[in-house]
Amino acid sequence: MTKTIGVGLIGTGYMGKCHALAWNAVKPVFGIEVTPRLAVLAEVDANLAKSRAAALGFAKATADWRTLIADPAVEVVSITTPNQFHAEMAIAALEAGKHVWCEKPMATTLDDAARMKAAAAKSGRVAMLGYNYIQNPAIRHIARLLDEGAIGQISHIRAEMDEDYMADLDAPFYWKSAASSGYGALDDFGVHPLSLIQTLVGDLSRVMAHQAKPFADRPARDGGRQPVENWDIASVLFETRTGVSGVMALNRAAWGRKGRIVLQIFGSRGSILYDQERMNEFQLYQASDRPGEQGYRTILTAPQHPPYDQFIPAPGHGLGFNELKIIECRQLLHLIAGESAVAVDFDAGFEIERTVHAMAQSDREARWVDLE
Amino acid sequence: MTKTIGVGLIGTGYMGKCHALAWNAVKPVFGIEVTPRLAVLAEVDANLAKSRAAALGFAKATADWRTLIADPAVEVVSITTPNQFHAEMAIAALEAGKHVWCEKPMATTLDDAARMKAAAAKSGRVAMLGYNYIQNPAIRHIARLLDEGAIGQISHIRAEMDEDYMADLDAPFYWKSAASSGYGALDDFGVHPLSLIQTLVGDLSRVMAHQAKPFADRPARDGGRQPVENWDIASVLFETRTGVSGVMALNRAAWGRKGRIVLQIFGSRGSILYDQERMNEFQLYQASDRPGEQGYRTILTAPQHPPYDQFIPAPGHGLGFNELKIIECRQLLHLIAGESAVAVDFDAGFEIERTVHAMAQSDREARWVDLE
Amino acid sequence: MTKTIGVGLIGTGYMGKCHALAWNAVKPVFGIEVTPRLAVLAEVDANLAKSRAAALGFAKATADWRTLIADPAVEVVSITTPNQFHAEMAIAALEAGKHVWCEKPMATTLDDAARMKAAAAKSGRVAMLGYNYIQNPAIRHIARLLDEGAIGQISHIRAEMDEDYMADLDAPFYWKSAASSGYGALDDFGVHPLSLIQTLVGDLSRVMAHQAKPFADRPARDGGRQPVENWDIASVLFETRTGVSGVMALNRAAWGRKGRIVLQIFGSRGSILYDQERMNEFQLYQASDRPGEQGYRTILTAPQHPPYDQFIPAPGHGLGFNELKIIECRQLLHLIAGESAVAVDFDAGFEIERTVHAMAQSDREARWVDLE
Amino acid sequence: MTKTIGVGLIGTGYMGKCHALAWNAVKPVFGIEVTPRLAVLAEVDANLAKSRAAALGFAKATADWRTLIADPAVEVVSITTPNQFHAEMAIAALEAGKHVWCEKPMATTLDDAARMKAAAAKSGRVAMLGYNYIQNPAIRHIARLLDEGAIGQISHIRAEMDEDYMADLDAPFYWKSAASSGYGALDDFGVHPLSLIQTLVGDLSRVMAHQAKPFADRPARDGGRQPVENWDIASVLFETRTGVSGVMALNRAAWGRKGRIVLQIFGSRGSILYDQERMNEFQLYQASDRPGEQGYRTILTAPQHPPYDQFIPAPGHGLGFNELKIIECRQLLHLIAGESAVAVDFDAGFEIERTVHAMAQSDREARWVDLE
Repeated sequence: MTKTIGVGLIGTGYMGKCHALAWNAVKPVFGIEVTPRLAVLAEVDANLAKSRAAALGFAKATADWRTLIADPAVEVVSITTPNQFHAEMAIAALEAGKHVWCEKPMATTLDDAARMKAAAAKSGRVAMLGYNYIQNPAIRHIARLLDEGAIGQISHIRAEMDEDYMADLDAPFYWKSAASSGYGALDDFGVHPLSLIQTLVGDLSRVMAHQAKPFADRPARDGGRQPVENWDIASVLFETRTGVSGVMALNRAAWGRKGRIVLQIFGSRGSILYDQERMNEFQLYQASDRPGEQGYRTILTAPQHPPYDQFIPAPGHGLGFNELKIIECRQLLHLIAGESAVAVDFDAGFEIERTVHAMAQSDREARWVDLE
Repeated sequence: MTKTIGVGLIGTGYMGKCHALAWNAVKPVFGIEVTPRLAVLAEVDANLAKSRAAALGFAKATADWRTLIADPAVEVVSITTPNQFHAEMAIAALEAGKHVWCEKPMATTLDDAARMKAAAAKSGRVAMLGYNYIQNPAIRHIARLLDEGAIGQISHIRAEMDEDYMADLDAPFYWKSAASSGYGALDDFGVHPLSLIQTLVGDLSRVMAHQAKPFADRPARDGGRQPVENWDIASVLFETRTGVSGVMALNRAAWGRKGRIVLQIFGSRGSILYDQERMNEFQLYQASDRPGEQGYRTILTAPQHPPYDQFIPAPGHGLGFNELKIIECRQLLHLIAGESAVAVDFDAGFEIERTVHAMAQSDREARWVDLE
Repeated sequence: MTKTIGVGLIGTGYMGKCHALAWNAVKPVFGIEVTPRLAVLAEVDANLAKSRAAALGFAKATADWRTLIADPAVEVVSITTPNQFHAEMAIAALEAGKHVWCEKPMATTLDDAARMKAAAAKSGRVAMLGYNYIQNPAIRHIARLLDEGAIGQISHIRAEMDEDYMADLDAPFYWKSAASSGYGALDDFGVHPLSLIQTLVGDLSRVMAHQAKPFADRPARDGGRQPVENWDIASVLFETRTGVSGVMALNRAAWGRKGRIVLQIFGSRGSILYDQERMNEFQLYQASDRPGEQGYRTILTAPQHPPYDQFIPAPGHGLGFNELKIIECRQLLHLIAGESAVAVDFDAGFEIERTVHAMAQSDREARWVDLE
Repeated sequence: MTKTIGVGLIGTGYMGKCHALAWNAVKPVFGIEVTPRLAVLAEVDANLAKSRAAALGFAKATADWRTLIADPAVEVVSITTPNQFHAEMAIAALEAGKHVWCEKPMATTLDDAARMKAAAAKSGRVAMLGYNYIQNPAIRHIARLLDEGAIGQISHIRAEMDEDYMADLDAPFYWKSAASSGYGALDDFGVHPLSLIQTLVGDLSRVMAHQAKPFADRPARDGGRQPVENWDIASVLFETRTGVSGVMALNRAAWGRKGRIVLQIFGSRGSILYDQERMNEFQLYQASDRPGEQGYRTILTAPQHPPYDQFIPAPGHGLGFNELKIIECRQLLHLIAGESAVAVDFDAGFEIERTVHAMAQSDREARWVDLE
C-alpha cells in the first residue's frame, strides 16, 4: 500500500508556484515512498484558485484559506502569501493539527513571530520556514568543510546580499517603499544571509546597524513625489555567540546585482567564498597547499555533494534555484517522519527575526544592541 | 474535460530519470492544459521496472519494451536506453503510431540513423531528439541576438566540449574505450556542440578532423593492460554552409572539466561567449559601445529570456541542467499539437550524425571531407 | 640645455626600490624633458647604502639621512623608511627647502601628521604622499565616469582590502602585532581604500568602526605565547560629506587574499566594480543598456585610459603594480612644475589620517564619531 | 671599476620604446653589476632620432642604422624595425661582431630566417629574439610544474591567440591586409603561442592548417573596395615531436579580445590554464586533490615564482607587459655573460618560422605537412 501525504497550498505567486513545483517533484527526484497528494489550493479569488489548481495539479480549489486548513485531506500546509498573513494562517494551521511549511520571513512584527513560535511548540507539529538557500549542496558541503576544520578556526565572516529591484529611480512608489512593508532591505531579504550565517557559523550575539535610503522620494502614482518610508540599504557590524566578528551588507537598489548573496568565511587555515549568482560553485583556499601553488579552488558541485546526486549523476551540470525548494521539501518530509534534517524551524526562525529587529533598533538608537 | 497525453518511458538511467522529472514538471511549470498521464515504464528487469515506476509516478511497469509500445494508453514514448537500442525502439514506436522522444545520439551507425529518419517521415508522427542544451534560455537569446544582427555578420566560431570522465589513467578499461561503443569523443559527446552550432549558425559543409588517444592502453580487469580502441580526443576544422570557418575541439579526458561546452562566436560588429558550466550567463561584446567602455557584458539569464520566466519571475536566480529537459518536453508537446518549436527532429538529427561520420572519415583518410 | 632634478632616496626596502625604479623610468616612459639626476641614497648602514646606490643608479651614498637632505644636489626627497621616521625626515626636508615624496601613511600619530601638514604649508614646497593605487588608469577612468554621471548619482559604496600576511597562526609574534606599530589593519593598510574613496567620492563625515583579533596570541620567539596587541581585522560603517553611505572592511589575516582591494560603487543609473588583484580591468553596469542585454561589462585598460597609452599602444596588455609608482612620480613632477596633478598631498593625506584615528576612537568608545 | 655594456637601438616604435624601457630598468630591477650604457639610437629621420634619444636616454642619435652598427661604443643591438628589415640589420650587426636582440618574427621569408640563423652560428655572438610572453613568471612556473610532473604526462594542448585590431569591417585597407605583409594571423602573431608551445611542450612534428578571411574586401582609401589579400583567421591541428596532439586557433579580427593568449594543457594527472589577458595568474587542477574539493586553483603570481621577487616582495601585486621585456633583457645579459637563460635564440626561432611556413603550405595544399 502506498503512503501519501495530503498537501494544501495557500498562495500561488512567486513562492507559491515554487512550492507547487517542489511538491510535484520531490517524490520522483528522491525516489521516496511517500506520495504527496495535492489536495487543496487556496487563492484570493475562486476563479483564479480553480485555474491555478488545474495548472499546478491540485484536486480542489478554494477562495477561503480556512476551508483549506479545515479540510481533513490536508495534512501539511504550504503558506506562501504576503508576509502580514503568515502568522494568522500558520497559527490556525498548527492549531488544526497540520504541519506547516511557511515562507520566510515569519511575520512583520516580532510579536507575531513569537506567537507563531509558541503555536508550533504547543502543536507538536512540524513548523518549517522556507529558507531555501541553505539547501544548496554547495552550502551543505561548506558546512561539512567548516565542521571538519578544513579552514581551521573561523575568524571572520562577511555576507552581502544585493538585488536591483528597487534601483530604478524613476519607478513609481509602490508598497515595498511604505513603512507598513517593514524596514526595507533588512527584513525584506537580510533574513536570507542571516539564515546562511546561522547555519554555517551560528547565531549572533550583538549587532550595530546602519540603514540608508538611496532615494529620499519616488514618483507618486498621482504625479508629484512621495517620500520613501524605509531603507533600501542596510549595513551591519556583528559578532557571533562563538566570538566571530563579521559584516553584513544589504542593498536592494544595487544596479547589476540580480540574486547576489556573497559569503566570505575566513579561518586560521584557509578561507571559503560563495556567490549565489553562481550557485553551482564555491571556492576554497587552504594554507596547507604547497607554497607557489596556493590559490582559491573553484569547485563545481557534483555527486560528491549530496543531495546533488539525487538530481544528476554527472558533476558540474548544475542545479537551479527552484531545485533548492525541492531539497527543502525533502527536509520537511524528513521532519514529518521524525528524521533529522537541515531546516530552519520556527525556533531558529524566531532567532533570525529577533536579530533583524535588534538591527533596526541598533540603527534607531545608533548603538550596539546585545542579543544574548 | 481535461486533455491528457499518455506517456511511456523506456530506460530509467541518467537520462531516463531526467525524462521522468520533465514529464512530472512540464504541466505545473508551463501551466499548460494538457496533462501528461504517466502510463507505462519499461526497464530490463521486472522488479526494477516496478520500483522505478512507483518512484517516478508511472501507473504500470514492464520488462518488455514492446509491451509498452503496444499499450494503447501510450501516445508518446521516451527512449533513454543505450544508443545501440535507439533505432529498433524508435522505429517500432513510430510504426505503432506513437510519437517519439529519443535521446541523442540517434544511433551507433549511420544506416540505423537513416532508417530512423525514414521511419519518422513515413509515420507522420513527431520524432524529436534529446538535444537539451539548445533549450537553455541563454542559448535561445543568443540565437535571437544573432538573428537580429547584434554582432553583425558571423565570421568565425569556436566550440569546445570537455569532461573528465575518461581522464583517469588508472581507471580500468570499460566499454566506453571499446570500438563497439563508437569513435569516442566524436560521437559520445561531439554531437552536443554540433547541435548548438546547427541551431545558431547552421549545418556544416566540410570538415577536417584529427582524433587522438591520450592513453594507448588502460588496466585490464583481469590484470595486465588492454589497448584503448577509440579516441578520447577529437579536434576538427570546419566550414558551415553559410561560409563561416570554425574549430571544434573535444576531450573527454580533460581533467578539471565537468560539463564544459564553450562557444565563441565572432562577428563583424561584436562577439558572443557561452560556457555550459556557467549555464545561467553569457557574454556579449558590441563594437558599438562607447570606446573606452567596451568590454564583454556578463548577462545573467532573466525573465527577458523566455521561457526562463515560466520558472522564476526574478532575474539571475538560475535554472539547472534538468530544467532544460522540462523546456525540451514543452517543445515536444508543441510539436505534437502542431505548433512551432525549437527542436532537433530526426531530419536535423540525421544531419548531425552524417557530420560526425564525415569527421571520422576525414581523420581516417587525413583529408577534408565534403558534406554538401 | 637639459633640465634636471636632483633626487635623494631615503630607504631601499619594498617601497624604496619601487621609488628608485620610478625615478629611473619616468623620463623614458613619459618622454618628458626634465631628467631625474639620482644624486644621493641613504640607508642605515654605509656599506648597504653604497651597494644599493650602485645597483639603483645613485651617484652618492650615505648612512646619514641628514647629510642627504643637506646636500645641495638634492632637490626632491623620496622618504620610504618605516612609518615612525616619516615625520622627522619630511619636516627636515621641507625645512631645508626640498620637495618631499613620502610613503603612506604620513605618521604613526595624528600629532606628527599635523606637524607634517603644517611644515608643508609653511615650506611652499611640494609634499606628496605615496598613494599609488589612485594612479591606476582604471581608477582614473572610473573617476571620469563618476564625474560625467555614467552611473547617475552615487548612492552607496563598499570598499574591502584584504591580504594574508598576518594570517598564519603559527608565525611568531613580530613587530606588526605590537601596539607600537599602530592599530593594525586600520592604519597599516586601511589608508589605501580610504585614498580611493577620497579620490572617487570624497572625504568621510562620520564613522562607526569595529576592530577584531582573529588570534588572541601568537608564538613568542622565546617559547610560550605572546598576546597580540592590535587588530588584524577592522570593519567600518560610514557616511561621506556628500551623504553617501558606505562600508569598509579590512582583514590582513585573510588567507587567500594577496593584494585585494575591492570597490563596489552603486549609483542611480548603474554601478562600477574594481578589484586590485585584477588591476587591469574594471566592471561597469549601466541601466541604460537594452533590457535583456544588461550586465557588467568587463573593461580591459587600454590607450583610451590615459596614461596607459604612455606605456603601451595596444589595449589589454596590462600594467604592473610598480608602474603605478611611475605614474605617481610623473604627478610629482607635474606638481613641482606648478601643473595640476592627481595626487594626495599632505593636506589630503592628513584628512585620511584624521579619519583613521576617528575610526579607532569610534571602536574604543563604541559609538559613531563625527569628522566634520 | 664598473662593468658596462654599450647598447644600440634601431627603431623606436611600440617595441622600440619597450626595449628602451627595459634597458633603463634592467639594472635597478635585478641589481646586477653590469650597467647598460645607452650609446646610440637610430631612427629613419635625424630629428626624430635626436628627440627620441633625448627622451629615452641614449647618448647619440643617427638616421643611419649602419652608423650605429659600426659604432665601437655599441656592443649589443636592439632591432625593433618592421619585419622586412630584420634580416639585413641582424646579419650586418652579427658580422660586425655585435650581439643582437631582434624582435619577432625573424623575417618575412624563410630564406631570410635561414640566413640569419647561419649568420648567428658563424658569428659566435648572442642572437636572441623578442619572445617576451615566455618570460612571464607564471609561464616559467608552469614550465617547472610540467617538468616535475604536476599534471602527469601531457596528453593534449590547446592554444588560442586573439586580438581585434583587424576586426573593424569599416576600417580602410592598410598594409596588414596586403600579401606583402605575410600570411596574416599566422605569422603576424601565431608565432607567439608557438613560442609558448615550444617552451612548454616542444617543437611540432606535423601540422594541418586552415586560413580564413572574415572580410573579402575592405574600403579602399580612394573609395570603392579593395580585396583583402591574406587571412585574419587561422586554425591549426598539430602534433608535437613528443606525440602530443593539439589545436592552435588564431583570430586577429576577434572583437572583444585585446591581448588574449589562452593555453589549456591537459595531462594524465591534472591540467593547467593560462590567459595572457590576466597574465598575473594561472590555473592548476590536480586529480590528487581530495574528491569533493577538486577544482581549478587560481594562483596569483608571487615571490615564489622568480623573477617576480626581483620586482615586488609581496604576492599578488602584479607585473605588467613591459616588465616581461625587462626579464627578457636580463636573459640576454645572462647569455652574453655565458650563463644559461630562458630565451628563443636564432636556432629556436628558426624552428618557429619553419613551422609557420609549413602551416601556410598545409593550408594551400589542404593536407598535413610533416616538419621532422
